[in-house]
Amino acid sequence: MTSKIWGGRFSAGPAAIMEEINASVGFDQRLAKQDLHGSRAHCAMLVAQGMISKEDGEAIQGGLLRIEKDIAEGNFIFKRSLEDVHMNIEARLTDLIGAPAGRLHTARSRNDQVATDFRMWVRAAIGNIDEELRKLQRALIDKADSYADAVMPGFTHLQTAQPVTFGHHLLAYVEMLGRDRSRFADAKVRLNECPLGAGALAGTSFPIDRDMTAEKLEFDRPMANSMDAVSDRDFALEFLAASSILVTHLSRFAEELVVWSSAQFGFIKFTDAFSTGSSMMPQKRNPDAAELVRAKAGRVFGGLITLLTVMKALPLTYSKDMQEDKEAVFATFDTIELCLAATTGMVEDMTPNTERMREAASAAFTTATDLADWLTQKLDIPFRESHHITGKIVKLAEGKGCDLPELTLADMQSADARITEDVFSVLTVDASAASRKSYGGTAPDNVKAQITATRERFLREKSSK
Amino acid sequence: MTSKIWGGRFSAGPAAIMEEINASVGFDQRLAKQDLHGSRAHCAMLVAQGMISKEDGEAIQGGLLRIEKDIAEGNFIFKRSLEDVHMNIEARLTDLIGAPAGRLHTARSRNDQVATDFRMWVRAAIGNIDEELRKLQRALIDKADSYADAVMPGFTHLQTAQPVTFGHHLLAYVEMLGRDRSRFADAKVRLNECPLGAGALAGTSFPIDRDMTAEKLEFDRPMANSMDAVSDRDFALEFLAASSILVTHLSRFAEELVVWSSAQFGFIKFTDAFSTGSSMMPQKRNPDAAELVRAKAGRVFGGLITLLTVMKALPLTYSKDMQEDKEAVFATFDTIELCLAATTGMVEDMTPNTERMREAASAAFTTATDLADWLTQKLDIPFRESHHITGKIVKLAEGKGCDLPELTLADMQSADARITEDVFSVLTVDASAASRKSYGGTAPDNVKAQITATRERFLREKSSK
Amino acid sequence: MTSKIWGGRFSAGPAAIMEEINASVGFDQRLAKQDLHGSRAHCAMLVAQGMISKEDGEAIQGGLLRIEKDIAEGNFIFKRSLEDVHMNIEARLTDLIGAPAGRLHTARSRNDQVATDFRMWVRAAIGNIDEELRKLQRALIDKADSYADAVMPGFTHLQTAQPVTFGHHLLAYVEMLGRDRSRFADAKVRLNECPLGAGALAGTSFPIDRDMTAEKLEFDRPMANSMDAVSDRDFALEFLAASSILVTHLSRFAEELVVWSSAQFGFIKFTDAFSTGSSMMPQKRNPDAAELVRAKAGRVFGGLITLLTVMKALPLTYSKDMQEDKEAVFATFDTIELCLAATTGMVEDMTPNTERMREAASAAFTTATDLADWLTQKLDIPFRESHHITGKIVKLAEGKGCDLPELTLADMQSADARITEDVFSVLTVDASAASRKSYGGTAPDNVKAQITATRERFLREKSSK
Amino acid sequence: MTSKIWGGRFSAGPAAIMEEINASVGFDQRLAKQDLHGSRAHCAMLVAQGMISKEDGEAIQGGLLRIEKDIAEGNFIFKRSLEDVHMNIEARLTDLIGAPAGRLHTARSRNDQVATDFRMWVRAAIGNIDEELRKLQRALIDKADSYADAVMPGFTHLQTAQPVTFGHHLLAYVEMLGRDRSRFADAKVRLNECPLGAGALAGTSFPIDRDMTAEKLEFDRPMANSMDAVSDRDFALEFLAASSILVTHLSRFAEELVVWSSAQFGFIKFTDAFSTGSSMMPQKRNPDAAELVRAKAGRVFGGLITLLTVMKALPLTYSKDMQEDKEAVFATFDTIELCLAATTGMVEDMTPNTERMREAASAAFTTATDLADWLTQKLDIPFRESHHITGKIVKLAEGKGCDLPELTLADMQSADARITEDVFSVLTVDASAASRKSYGGTAPDNVKAQITATRERFLREKSSK
Repeated sequence: MTSKIWGGRFSAGPAAIMEEINASVGFDQRLAKQDLHGSRAHCAMLVAQGMISKEDGEAIQGGLLRIEKDIAEGNFIFKRSLEDVHMNIEARLTDLIGAPAGRLHTARSRNDQVATDFRMWVRAAIGNIDEELRKLQRALIDKADSYADAVMPGFTHLQTAQPVTFGHHLLAYVEMLGRDRSRFADAKVRLNECPLGAGALAGTSFPIDRDMTAEKLEFDRPMANSMDAVSDRDFALEFLAASSILVTHLSRFAEELVVWSSAQFGFIKFTDAFSTGSSMMPQKRNPDAAELVRAKAGRVFGGLITLLTVMKALPLTYSKDMQEDKEAVFATFDTIELCLAATTGMVEDMTPNTERMREAASAAFTTATDLADWLTQKLDIPFRESHHITGKIVKLAEGKGCDLPELTLADMQSADARITEDVFSVLTVDASAASRKSYGGTAPDNVKAQITATRERFLREKSSK
Repeated sequence: MTSKIWGGRFSAGPAAIMEEINASVGFDQRLAKQDLHGSRAHCAMLVAQGMISKEDGEAIQGGLLRIEKDIAEGNFIFKRSLEDVHMNIEARLTDLIGAPAGRLHTARSRNDQVATDFRMWVRAAIGNIDEELRKLQRALIDKADSYADAVMPGFTHLQTAQPVTFGHHLLAYVEMLGRDRSRFADAKVRLNECPLGAGALAGTSFPIDRDMTAEKLEFDRPMANSMDAVSDRDFALEFLAASSILVTHLSRFAEELVVWSSAQFGFIKFTDAFSTGSSMMPQKRNPDAAELVRAKAGRVFGGLITLLTVMKALPLTYSKDMQEDKEAVFATFDTIELCLAATTGMVEDMTPNTERMREAASAAFTTATDLADWLTQKLDIPFRESHHITGKIVKLAEGKGCDLPELTLADMQSADARITEDVFSVLTVDASAASRKSYGGTAPDNVKAQITATRERFLREKSSK
Repeated sequence: MTSKIWGGRFSAGPAAIMEEINASVGFDQRLAKQDLHGSRAHCAMLVAQGMISKEDGEAIQGGLLRIEKDIAEGNFIFKRSLEDVHMNIEARLTDLIGAPAGRLHTARSRNDQVATDFRMWVRAAIGNIDEELRKLQRALIDKADSYADAVMPGFTHLQTAQPVTFGHHLLAYVEMLGRDRSRFADAKVRLNECPLGAGALAGTSFPIDRDMTAEKLEFDRPMANSMDAVSDRDFALEFLAASSILVTHLSRFAEELVVWSSAQFGFIKFTDAFSTGSSMMPQKRNPDAAELVRAKAGRVFGGLITLLTVMKALPLTYSKDMQEDKEAVFATFDTIELCLAATTGMVEDMTPNTERMREAASAAFTTATDLADWLTQKLDIPFRESHHITGKIVKLAEGKGCDLPELTLADMQSADARITEDVFSVLTVDASAASRKSYGGTAPDNVKAQITATRERFLREKSSK
Repeated sequence: MTSKIWGGRFSAGPAAIMEEINASVGFDQRLAKQDLHGSRAHCAMLVAQGMISKEDGEAIQGGLLRIEKDIAEGNFIFKRSLEDVHMNIEARLTDLIGAPAGRLHTARSRNDQVATDFRMWVRAAIGNIDEELRKLQRALIDKADSYADAVMPGFTHLQTAQPVTFGHHLLAYVEMLGRDRSRFADAKVRLNECPLGAGALAGTSFPIDRDMTAEKLEFDRPMANSMDAVSDRDFALEFLAASSILVTHLSRFAEELVVWSSAQFGFIKFTDAFSTGSSMMPQKRNPDAAELVRAKAGRVFGGLITLLTVMKALPLTYSKDMQEDKEAVFATFDTIELCLAATTGMVEDMTPNTERMREAASAAFTTATDLADWLTQKLDIPFRESHHITGKIVKLAEGKGCDLPELTLADMQSADARITEDVFSVLTVDASAASRKSYGGTAPDNVKAQITATRERFLREKSSK
C-alpha cells in the first residue's frame, strides 16, 4: 500500500513519518519529574479511597521512586517507540513491579495526566523566572545605588531632553521587572488548579478524592469542569504572553546598552566577559550579549504566536494539536532564563563613563525647562508664556555659541526684564536634577529613597506577592 | 527644496505627508473624556497646592466642562492641524477662557498627560469587557441549565469518545471566560497607577501633590519612577494579550458552532437572526456570525503582534513610535466587544437538536470506558486488563453490527466469565453520563450543582474579583 | 568582579552565560557542507588570482576535503568553545595543514562567509521542498484520477452547497501547491546572488574575482553592494514567508481530513499507519497526523514572526542579532519537510467512502442552482427571477419531505407553468456535476482533462519553473 | 426570544449585532471600481455568448457607467443594510434599468465576483507601490550621487568598523528596495489569474467564455480549478508578506535616521518638514517621521499575522471568515504607501554633516584592516599573521593616544621589521575607502559606477520587470 516515496529520513515509509510526527518523548521527557509526582499522588489517593490495596500502592510507590532515581542519575533510557514520557514511565514501572503497575491507571487518563504534569512544570518555571527576575532587580538596584547622583541625559526621541541620573534610569527597569514578577505571580495563581481526576474528558465513576490529589500536588483546588480541565491551555498561553512582555523590557534595555556602547555615545563599557573584542581592533567591543538579548525577543514573540495559532478554533476537548504546546513553552523558558542571566551579568559588568554622561547632559540646553519653570514659579508667569520667553533666551545662547549658564544676567533680562540673578541657581544640570523632587522624580535624594523602597518592595522576601 | 514627486494625496508635498503620518487626532479623540477628567484633576491639584489662583482654577474648570458638553453633544470640531486630542482641547480652552488656559499646563507635559489618559481609557475598556463577559457567562449558564441532562457525544480528536451533557459542555466555556475575567481584573490592578506628575520624563520642581491627582482619578497610587511612567506601555500589551487569550476561547466555541451547524452534525440550529439563509436553498443556514467570530481571532492576534513589535528594543523614554499604541488597542476593544455580543446572541439564539445529539452519543461504543471501569470496580480486575477485555467485547459487538447494550450476557461472558447481568446497568449513555459523579464530572446532578456554583462565583456581583 | 549569583547551569559565572548565549555551533554546524564548498571556491579563486600559491592552495583543498569526509563519517567533533562552525573548521584546518590555513582567510571575513553559506543552505532547502511538493502533487493527482467522478458535497460555510467530485476537490490543492512551488522558485532566483567578496562590510583591496567564486558556487552573479551583502536576510524572511503560506494550505487540508474522519461526516478512513486507534474503542481512529499538520502551522508562523522581529529596525551592517536567523529557518524547514511527507502519506493512505459522500451530496437540495440555471437557460427567465421560482419549488419539496428529483412535474408547474419534463434531467447530483463544464468546473470530463494538464504542468520535470 | 441585554450600540438586539459583524460595505466599497469593471466584462461576455440580448447588455453597460460616474463624483450612497459593495451596486442598477439588471448575475456568484474584484484591487495596489518604491530608489540614488565620496564610519554591532562612503551606504537600500520591487512583481504575476466563471464553487453549466473575461480584465488566464478560485487568498497573503519584508527595510533605515539624528552621532539634520522642533529647545529636532516609519512595521506584521490566522485550517471553499481579508490588506497598503512617501521625503530632506561623519570614521583605528591587508598583499604574510601584527601596532597607537597614521615608521617596524614607508599610503580613511575596489566595494569610483548601474536597472522604465 505504501509506496516508499520518501527519501532521506522517511525512506522507511509511513511508520517512520508517523513516529517522527507523533512521538513527543524527545521533548516531553522534561516532564518526567512532574509525571512521577503526579503518579505518586494519584496512587496515594487510590489507596486512601480503597481503590487499590495498600500492598499494590507500596509496590507502585517503590517503583516510581526507583524510576525517579534512575532518571536523576541518567540511567533511564527514553524510547521513542513508546511515544511519550508517560508511556515510557508506565512501561518501565510494569517491568519493575509487574501486575500492580496496571492498577495505577485506574480512574486516570493520559488527558488529565498530561495536563496536570504540564501545569506543575509551568508552575516551577514561573518560580525559577521569579528568582532570576529578583536577581536582575537586585543587580540594577545595586548599580543604581552606586550612581544615584551620576547625571546623564534623559532622552525622548533619542534626543537629549532633560538631565536625569543614571541611578534613576536603572530604577525605571526595576519597576518594569516588578510588574513582570507580578504578572507571572498572577498567572501562577490562575494555573494552580488541578486537572487530575477529569479522566479522558467526562470525569469518572470511581470514588476518587480530587481534593486530596490537588492538595498533595500543591494545587489550590481541583478544576471545576472536566472538559475544561483536559482542553485548557490558558496557563501556557499566559506564560508565553507574560514572557513576551518581559522580553520587551529586556530588549529595550539591550538596545540602550548597544547604543550606549557605541563610540559616539561612549556612555558605558563592558569587560571581555560580556563583549567580543578583536585582536586587531582593540577599541572595538562588540556588545554581543546585548545584541542577542535584543534579538531573542523575536523568538519569544514567535513562541506566543505559535501557541495562539494552535489553540485558535480548536474544538473541545483534547486534540492532538495540543501536543504542540510544550516545545513553545520549553524554548521560551530557556530563552528567558538565558536572557535574564545575561542581562544580570551585563548590569554587574558594565562601567558607566560618568564624565561622558555628564558632558552629554550639559550640552543641548537641557535645563531650558528649568528656566521656564523658574519663570513660572518665581515670577508667576503663565507656563505657556514662560515657555515662550525661554525660547527667546535659548536662541540668544545658541547665537552666542554658549549654553544657558554662560549667559549674563543682562542677556537674560533682554528677554524679560523681571529675571533676577536667582535664575542661575537652576541652570546647571546638577541643580536641574536635584530640583526634580516630585514623587518619582530624578532628584538624587528621591533616587536614594526609591532605592530603599524598591529593596523593600522587591528584594525582601523570595516571593513577589 | 521639495520636489513634489508624490502623486495623489501627497501631492502637496512634505507638509501633507508629515501631517498624515504625524497627526493622531483622527483616532486619539477617543481619549477626549479621559483627557478632560485628567485636566480637571490636575487643575484642582494646582489650586490646592497654591500653584494657580482659585479664580484661574474656576475659569479652567468652567472651560473644561463646557468643552465636555460640546463634545458630548457633537459640537466640537477636532482639527487635524492641531495634531492630537490634547492640543485640540488646549486650543479650545484658550479660545474660551484666554490667559488662564496657559496655566493649566504648569508642571505637566504631554508625555505624562497622554499616559494618564490612555490608562484611564483602557481601565474603562476592561470594565466594559468584564460586563460583556459576565453577560456571556449568564447566557451560557442559562442555556446549560435548560440542557443539564441532554446527552451528547464528548469529543477528543473530533472523534466520539464518551457521553457528556450539553450543559456540561457549555459550562466548560463558563470556566474559560471566568479565567478571562480574572486575567483582565489582574491587568486592571496592575495598570491602576497614575503617571501624572512625571512631567516630560524627569519629574518636576513644582510642589505638586501626586497622591491627590492619583486619588481624584481613581488610581491606587502614583507611579514610582518618572521615566517608567512616561515610557511604559505594559498595560496596553497586557490588555492585548488578555484579549488574545479570550479570543481563542471565542474562536474555539465558534468553530464548534460552525461544525455543529453542518448538515452532517446537525446538532444545533440558528434562527435568521444569527445565520444567513438563501431564498433558493432554504435548508442552507450559513453560520456567518460564528465564522466571523472565529476569524476575528486573527485581528486580535495581529493587534498584539503590532504593539509587541513597536515596543521591542525601544530606548527610554518616550519615542514617537509609541503613538502606534492606540489604534491597536482601540481596534481590539471594538473587536472583542463585538465578538462577545455576537457570541452571547448566538448562545441565546441557538436551539440544540437533542435527539440528534443523543443518537450520536449512542453510536460508536461510547460506553466502552464504562464497561472497563465496571470490570475494575466490580470485579477488581487491574485497569489495564479491563481495558483489554473491553477491547474484545467491543470487537464482538462490531462483528455483530450492534452496540454494547445490545449484546447478550453470554456474549459478554465469552470475553470474561466473571461478568454478571449488572454490567448492563452501566452501558447506556444516560447511565454513563450519570455515573461520572467525580467532582467536575458530567453527571447531570453535578452539572446542576455546577450551575448553582457558577452563578454564585460569576454572576452574583458586578466584579469578578 | 562577578558575583556568581547564577544557580544551575550558569553557576560558572559570566563565562558560562556568554558561551551559552553566544555560541552558535550547536545549530550552525548544519552549514558545514556549505562552509566547506564556499572555502574551496574561495581558495581556488585566490590561487587563480595569484593571491596564494598553488601549493598552499592544494594543501588547503586537501585539508578541506579531509574535513568534509570526517564530517560525513561522523568523525568530526564540533567544539562549543570555538563558537561557530566556521571557526571549528578553520581550527581543524590549521591542525591538519599548518601555516597555509592562515592564508585561506585572505580577502574574506566571517560576515560575507556566513552570508554565503546560509544562502547556499536555503537554496538547497528550497530544492528539497520543491521535490516534496511535487510528490504531494503527484499523490493528489493520482488520488484525483481514481475519484474523478466520485460525487461529494461541495461546501461553503461548511454547509452543503453544490455537488462536486472528490477528484475536483483534491485538484484544488494541486493548484495551491503549484503556487507554493512557484513562490519558492521565485525566492530561489532572488536569493541566488553571491555575497562572497563583500568582506566585513566594505569590500576589499585584494584583487579578487567575485564572478569566479559566484560561478563556482552556482550563484547567478555577485551581489552589487557590499554593505547589503553582509546585512541582508531577505532570503531567509522570504523562505519563512513562503513556508507560512504553504502551511496554510496544508492546515486547510488537514482540517478537512479531521472533519471528514469524524463519525458524523464519515467521508474518509485512514489505516493504522496514519491514525491512532484504541484497543478498547476500535471504531475510534484519531487522525493524529492530520491534527499535527494542522497544528504545526503555528510553529511556522512563529518562525516568521521571530525573524521579522529580529530584523525590524536593525541598523546596518552586521549585528549579532542576525545570528538568530538560523534556528528559525532550520526549524521551519524540518517542520515543512515533515508536514509534506505526512500529508503525502495521508493522501496515499486514505480511503474515501464514496457512498457516504454521494448520499451527503444528494441531500439538502444541492441541485437548486441547477434548477435555477435551467429556468434561465431553457426558459430565458432573468436569473434573479429564476432564483425566486426555485425558492418556491424548494419550499414545496421541503414541505413534502422529499428532494427535488422526487417532485412531480405538476408540482414544478405549480411554481411556474412554463416548466417542462426536461427539467428533471438536471436535478440529480450526477447530472449537476456533469453539467459544470465551464473551464475549471467540476464536470468529470473537465476533471479528467485537468488531471492530464496538471501532470503536464507540475510533474513532467523536476523543476516547477 | 432575544433578551436585549446589550447596552450601547447593540441595544437594538441581534439585528444590530448581526449587521455590525456581517456588513462589509464600510470597507469593501474600496472595491467599487473593480466591481464595476468586472461586471462590465462579464456583461460583454454574456452578450458575446448569446446569453443575454444586445439590448439588455447595452442597458446594463449604461447603468454601470452611470454608477461609476456617480461614485467618482461622490454621488453614490452606500447603504449598510445592503451589506456589501456588490449588493449596493446591483440594487442601484436595478433602480436605474429595471429587469435587465436581473440578467447580469447569470452564470456568476458573489464568490467568484468578490475574488475577481479583490485580485484586481491588489494588482493595482502593487502597481502603486512599485511606483512609490521607484521614487524612493531615485531619491536614494540622487542623494548617493551627491555623497559618493563622503566618508563615514561603516558599522557592525553599531561599533565603528571600516570607512565607507555615505553614497555606498544609501545604495545598500537601493538594492533592498530593488528586491522588494521584484518580490511584488512576482506576486503580481502569480495573482494574475482570473477567478471569474468559477461560480459559487463548482463552475457553471452556462456556455461562458472565461478566456474572454480574463482578457478583458487584463488577467493572464482564467484559474484552472473552480474550488481553488473561490477559496484562494494566497495573493493577499503574499501581498502582506512582501509588505512585511519591505517594511523591515524601511524600519532599518528609519532606525539609522533616528540614531544619526541624535546629538551624540550628529550625522544628519532634518528641516522642520520632517522633524518636530520645540520653541523652547530649538536644538531638539525630534525625528518623528522616522520614528513613525520604524513603528509602523508593527502594524504591517500584525496585518500578516491577521490573515495567516484567518486562513489557517479553513476548510474549502468559501467561508465567511474570508471577509476578514480586506481590511488587513487595505490597512497595509495605506501604511506602506505612507511610509514610502515619508521615507522619500526624509531622504530628500536630510542634510548629512560630512565633517562629523569623516571625523567619526577617522577615529577608532578604522584602517586597521587596511594595515593587515597591506601586510599580506605587500609582504606576503599569511592573513592570520598579518592580523596578529596589526593588533600589536594598534595597541601601540592606543598606548600613545594617537591613531594609526600618526605613528612613525619606527613604531611600525618595532612590530614587524619588514614594514616600509609605503604602508602610510593605506592608513587614511580616504585611502582606505578608495582601496576597496572589489566589485560591490565602497571605493568612490565603484560607488559612482553603481549609481549609473542602478539608474539603469531600476529607474529606466516604469516597471521593475
